[in-house]
Amino acid sequence: MHGEIITIGNELTSGRTPDLNAHYVAGKLTASGLNVIRITSVGDDERMAAEALKRALASSRFVIITGGLGSTEDDMTSKIVATALDRPLCLDHRMLRKIRNYVAAHGIEMTPPLEKMAFMPEGATMIHPKGAVCGFSLIERDIRFYCLPGVPEEMRHVLDAFVLPELLSLYESPPVMRQRLLKLYGVDESQIAEILSELMRTSGEVAFGFYPHFPENHITISLRGDDAPSVTAALDKVEQDIMALVGPYVFATGDQEMEEVVGRLLRHHKKTLSVAESCTGGLIGHRLTDVAGSSDYFQGGVVSYSNQSKADILHVNWKTLERHGAVSSQTAEEMARGIRKQMKSDLGLAVTGIAGPEGGTREKPVGTVYIGLDAFDGTVSRRYRFRGRRKQVKLNTSMMALDWVRRRLNGDPLLPGI
Amino acid sequence: MHGEIITIGNELTSGRTPDLNAHYVAGKLTASGLNVIRITSVGDDERMAAEALKRALASSRFVIITGGLGSTEDDMTSKIVATALDRPLCLDHRMLRKIRNYVAAHGIEMTPPLEKMAFMPEGATMIHPKGAVCGFSLIERDIRFYCLPGVPEEMRHVLDAFVLPELLSLYESPPVMRQRLLKLYGVDESQIAEILSELMRTSGEVAFGFYPHFPENHITISLRGDDAPSVTAALDKVEQDIMALVGPYVFATGDQEMEEVVGRLLRHHKKTLSVAESCTGGLIGHRLTDVAGSSDYFQGGVVSYSNQSKADILHVNWKTLERHGAVSSQTAEEMARGIRKQMKSDLGLAVTGIAGPEGGTREKPVGTVYIGLDAFDGTVSRRYRFRGRRKQVKLNTSMMALDWVRRRLNGDPLLPGI
Repeated sequence: MHGEIITIGNELTSGRTPDLNAHYVAGKLTASGLNVIRITSVGDDERMAAEALKRALASSRFVIITGGLGSTEDDMTSKIVATALDRPLCLDHRMLRKIRNYVAAHGIEMTPPLEKMAFMPEGATMIHPKGAVCGFSLIERDIRFYCLPGVPEEMRHVLDAFVLPELLSLYESPPVMRQRLLKLYGVDESQIAEILSELMRTSGEVAFGFYPHFPENHITISLRGDDAPSVTAALDKVEQDIMALVGPYVFATGDQEMEEVVGRLLRHHKKTLSVAESCTGGLIGHRLTDVAGSSDYFQGGVVSYSNQSKADILHVNWKTLERHGAVSSQTAEEMARGIRKQMKSDLGLAVTGIAGPEGGTREKPVGTVYIGLDAFDGTVSRRYRFRGRRKQVKLNTSMMALDWVRRRLNGDPLLPGI
Repeated sequence: MHGEIITIGNELTSGRTPDLNAHYVAGKLTASGLNVIRITSVGDDERMAAEALKRALASSRFVIITGGLGSTEDDMTSKIVATALDRPLCLDHRMLRKIRNYVAAHGIEMTPPLEKMAFMPEGATMIHPKGAVCGFSLIERDIRFYCLPGVPEEMRHVLDAFVLPELLSLYESPPVMRQRLLKLYGVDESQIAEILSELMRTSGEVAFGFYPHFPENHITISLRGDDAPSVTAALDKVEQDIMALVGPYVFATGDQEMEEVVGRLLRHHKKTLSVAESCTGGLIGHRLTDVAGSSDYFQGGVVSYSNQSKADILHVNWKTLERHGAVSSQTAEEMARGIRKQMKSDLGLAVTGIAGPEGGTREKPVGTVYIGLDAFDGTVSRRYRFRGRRKQVKLNTSMMALDWVRRRLNGDPLLPGI
């Protein structure tokens, strides 16, 4: 069962806003085992929208249309659908009543633009209203059209509560579709593809997807089948095979972020963490505290952007700073020891580096970063060289530093320099 | 001059990732005065992609295609374009050399998948390479096709450095299109629309756009015309009128982020800043240090997530913490004084609050935040209540705190509680 998505609005074709509605609808349909073959965005342009609709009539079993249902002049989806399907535009009295009730309840005045919203193509059925903007569905040549509001919250509600259940009810025996997500860090996309190429050839119907997601790489494996147990078993097998090949790089199976994985491990092992950040400027602490409940294991941190603060608060030796520089293995280790002591935490993590674009030297070019980790059994540090611009160097540094904590708590060896 | 965008990749039609490439390309083309009539996304499916290409041939003057140029098996844009345009696929020796050089420089082994990337449709021209994945262009029936990589950074580079200049050079006398962006913080979208409604009615051809961009609100004003001076003068007038109405909320005219505005002001006034963060966990420092050269004015910070660290490092009085709590005006002020003293900076900024979802009380519900600012002439603090989830509360808090610094340096009054 395949269908497509049409989104209407000048804000999309002019690049003012990303098409997050299409993204949401596509994700939901796919997760339900439905196949999206195309997403088309057009401006508030009758001719282009009508063309997209007619093409959909020729290729799809269902069509989800979002946007253009509001009260302003550029909202003309009802008219476009009516014209494209050669149906008259009729006043829907139930819809009109809904709008009147809404307007009365919110103390707004009824106006012709609001009344306009009650006109729908002949034969259309109003669907599950929420707020003033509703949606409608209609069937043409056995193809289902769903016109949904463009406001994301309303659209999602109508999709989840009405459209998906109806589409799924059309199956005689629903096909099963399962997808798994594995998130990797510290390995190139091309390396992954090479390592897994043999497995891909021998994994039958299981579809592999590779998605670089800087600085992570995501792998999806998905399979359609007739029953859940056999689909699940086949995916289990492939997931095990992947783990055997690239397991050390997989930091999450499923949709967790690195900071959630690290948080779960810290909680599990009853360890606390503190962070001394130089080049990341607070990003590591920010990521750790994006997780609800992180105060249970995250003690806090110091952003020691100046040498003065490295010495004053973290008690890094001035001699170390003078002899080896702020960006050095020695400084990273003293920062890690300093923050662990200051914050009385089990683990002390430190990063110091040159995010760029200025500040690089021949020996220590932009992207040079030292990570240090201090614990009861001693301190380790290592040098990295990250490519990219300032924000990418910061992001990669935060990722590698968090991955150190993950590996430490998992008992894995640290990653080699990148 | 109108054209369209085709994006290829299963990650788009399956909803794995939002189509940010199309968003970027559409925005850039529109800002250059070019008209995007359609955006089509299809999966890694030869038939669907070929259909989209053929349709583009019938409607557009130029076509931008992104994705599917990599080395993996599902990267088949070259083949699709060749087939759709009925051209053979040929090995491009210049491209092959580029790939070999890149591979050699990065110590990667040359493999058949990498070699595959050097095949392009006959008559295609390699464009502006960066990294191993290049792009190519070709002309068919006077219509320009640009095939760009799917990796956003590479795609943007090729678009900006090559595609846009070439497209703009095709005009005989380019139509003038100018757009201004104003970024506001601290005021509702509906309030803005109301305040500006009269101005919108009286501003003739100038088009207004309102774009909520949590927690900011963006306004664009744009105008097309025959000559630059008159278009610029008309926009100047409207911009002044807007500033007269909502000026205090406008933190940037143009594309700067709040942290860039604050950084520029600190540099201009020769002031230094340090930050004591509790509920934001490092986000304020992270934002400040996203700006190149921020070490000139940002001294550093402390993420005092625990009471212990508030007392130990920032010297917040234990009595204050016991009597008023960690989330209080008194604590925010002592944190601000503490960090300013510790870091020897001109300004000391502090935030403490309850980001949620846990930790709220009747008197201090989730979203309660205190901001404090200390300077040579004393300390101020204020209570806020931010709505939304944890990440939104963090973001709003960082925004308001940075806006305090902006207002302080501009000599503006602080914002009332939200």
